[in-house]
Amino acid sequence: MDVRGYAVMSEQAPLTPWAFTRREVRDDDVAIDIEFSGVCHSDIHTARSEWGPISFPCVPGHEIVGRVSAIGSAVSGFSVGQRVGVGVYVDSCRTCKNCLSGMSNYCEEGFTGTYNTPERSGEGITQGGYSTGIVVNEGYVVNVPESLDPAGAAPLLCAGITLYSPLKEFGAGPGVKVGIVGLGGLGHMGVKYAVAMGAEVTVFSHSESKRDDALAMGAHHFVVTNDETVFQTHAKQFALIINTVSASIDLNLYLELLGLDGTLVMVGLAAEPYPIKPFSMAPQRRRIAGSTIGPVSELQEMLDFSAEHNIVSDVEVIDADYVNTSWDRVVESDVRYRFVIDVSTI
Amino acid sequence: MDVRGYAVMSEQAPLTPWAFTRREVRDDDVAIDIEFSGVCHSDIHTARSEWGPISFPCVPGHEIVGRVSAIGSAVSGFSVGQRVGVGVYVDSCRTCKNCLSGMSNYCEEGFTGTYNTPERSGEGITQGGYSTGIVVNEGYVVNVPESLDPAGAAPLLCAGITLYSPLKEFGAGPGVKVGIVGLGGLGHMGVKYAVAMGAEVTVFSHSESKRDDALAMGAHHFVVTNDETVFQTHAKQFALIINTVSASIDLNLYLELLGLDGTLVMVGLAAEPYPIKPFSMAPQRRRIAGSTIGPVSELQEMLDFSAEHNIVSDVEVIDADYVNTSWDRVVESDVRYRFVIDVSTI
Repeated sequence: MDVRGYAVMSEQAPLTPWAFTRREVRDDDVAIDIEFSGVCHSDIHTARSEWGPISFPCVPGHEIVGRVSAIGSAVSGFSVGQRVGVGVYVDSCRTCKNCLSGMSNYCEEGFTGTYNTPERSGEGITQGGYSTGIVVNEGYVVNVPESLDPAGAAPLLCAGITLYSPLKEFGAGPGVKVGIVGLGGLGHMGVKYAVAMGAEVTVFSHSESKRDDALAMGAHHFVVTNDETVFQTHAKQFALIINTVSASIDLNLYLELLGLDGTLVMVGLAAEPYPIKPFSMAPQRRRIAGSTIGPVSELQEMLDFSAEHNIVSDVEVIDADYVNTSWDRVVESDVRYRFVIDVSTI
Repeated sequence: MDVRGYAVMSEQAPLTPWAFTRREVRDDDVAIDIEFSGVCHSDIHTARSEWGPISFPCVPGHEIVGRVSAIGSAVSGFSVGQRVGVGVYVDSCRTCKNCLSGMSNYCEEGFTGTYNTPERSGEGITQGGYSTGIVVNEGYVVNVPESLDPAGAAPLLCAGITLYSPLKEFGAGPGVKVGIVGLGGLGHMGVKYAVAMGAEVTVFSHSESKRDDALAMGAHHFVVTNDETVFQTHAKQFALIINTVSASIDLNLYLELLGLDGTLVMVGLAAEPYPIKPFSMAPQRRRIAGSTIGPVSELQEMLDFSAEHNIVSDVEVIDADYVNTSWDRVVESDVRYRFVIDVSTI
């Protein structure tokens, strides 16, 4: 399948137009005409080789919404014309304990990323959603309800599931006190989902400037963290805190906010290790947890939940030729709250 | 009540004999003639002011076994002559959420330590178990089954519960792969309890010298950690690992051993913060947890479990005048596996 995309063609190069070919549709494949592709900060980290060497050309993008253009002969779950989504991974080993239990996002061999990852077949490197079309095994495709705005739905495939999954796993629900640290692309999804789950939601931000947005999204409280006394004021009050900030912050301060058996989930991943004081964790049997997106089944559950609660990401839809500028703005945290490429402009 | 004990009388002084007076028995108090008192590394940290300034004189000791010598008029749970135990705390606020739910070891105001802690009544500072007698509110006293060796039972009141509680909380049970890091006073209790709970137990030690002991205690595997390749060999295999080492070790290596949703519990508390890499935790949704002894009800459960499974600590019973030497040996890790003072020698 011939497609057009935007790729990084060499080390430290900007994104430029690139025409390339997708694999032919196999029996269990779904071909998708992409409508919208979200811009995730990890696209930038990857393409700029900040997380290690990559393969060129590299077409980023793992927040993909589009319509099915063709299906393989064995595909039963999708039909041509259906609106679908693809997230952070497009394959996994399918044989390890985690894959067999439906938790393929934690595949013990490592999942096959939607871009910049060797295909398990050995045929080349995956290329992502900054492109007009993609071919994906049906087991890694989800239905996107028609009631959702497709541009706003695109970031759900990564930012959305990154927050939805730990909120579910670590007990967000009616009356539970949940803290969301940072109100960006990840954090704003956390607020929306936690509120929809019935939790009492507090946003922690270093800046007063996002108070109105946080409250408009349904947050019940907004705490500016430029004064460390706020951590004493709110000590031992929270059951669940999700840190979405990827800069290095002092997690010990946030641990003090947790009550008995409370959990601090790290989804904003700093480059440096976090210094964790043992005496921050012992007093209330506190926990720290990692979390990595969610399995395909939960991606579907999240999209259905989003349709039910009318949740999408707050997005700024951009033309493809604006993508390099959008990356600079993401790095400067100058976006409310997610850029999404209108793929019809490629 | 007049008693004799061993106290640190001033900054950096050794333990010396000291005669002092306990409070008179109140309506809800139990007076105890102490038979055995365990030596815990935290006694040394505290008495040597390594955890901050303390009050002098200080009588350490929070692993107490003895017999009831008198009871207050309102005491219903204990009778004179009964063998009982007292652990790490002797009071709590009794009004916070955690106290009311039976988790007074996590009292939001902080529990009242068995020694070196102001009494809630305002009457002085608590004094611990290196003494011939103690008076304790009955709500903080437990029954010690007669079938247990009383000297071997003493360390259960701190070392035992420190391991038993997280093993229960974090799912040790039949077929579950549990790792115990370090085979000392804490670690050897972890091995015994985890084995009795039916878990498949691996001991991680920096030294080959403890292999025979570990296997004799029932451990199924023994891994020497002087070669980092062992962490690759055992990657993603464990559901629960309890670190009992109080020296600074690289917890990221142990995190790699955890499979999906596995937990690393820190009970050996290093003085320095642990550097935790985000990418050590995200891949298998791994967790780190703190844990602080256990509530009184669980202390009782543990003692009953110990009687049922014939579990006590491996101890070296010492005369009171050996206690300063025993402290030096604890600091040098030269004990298998816990010193216990024969209080009749005071």
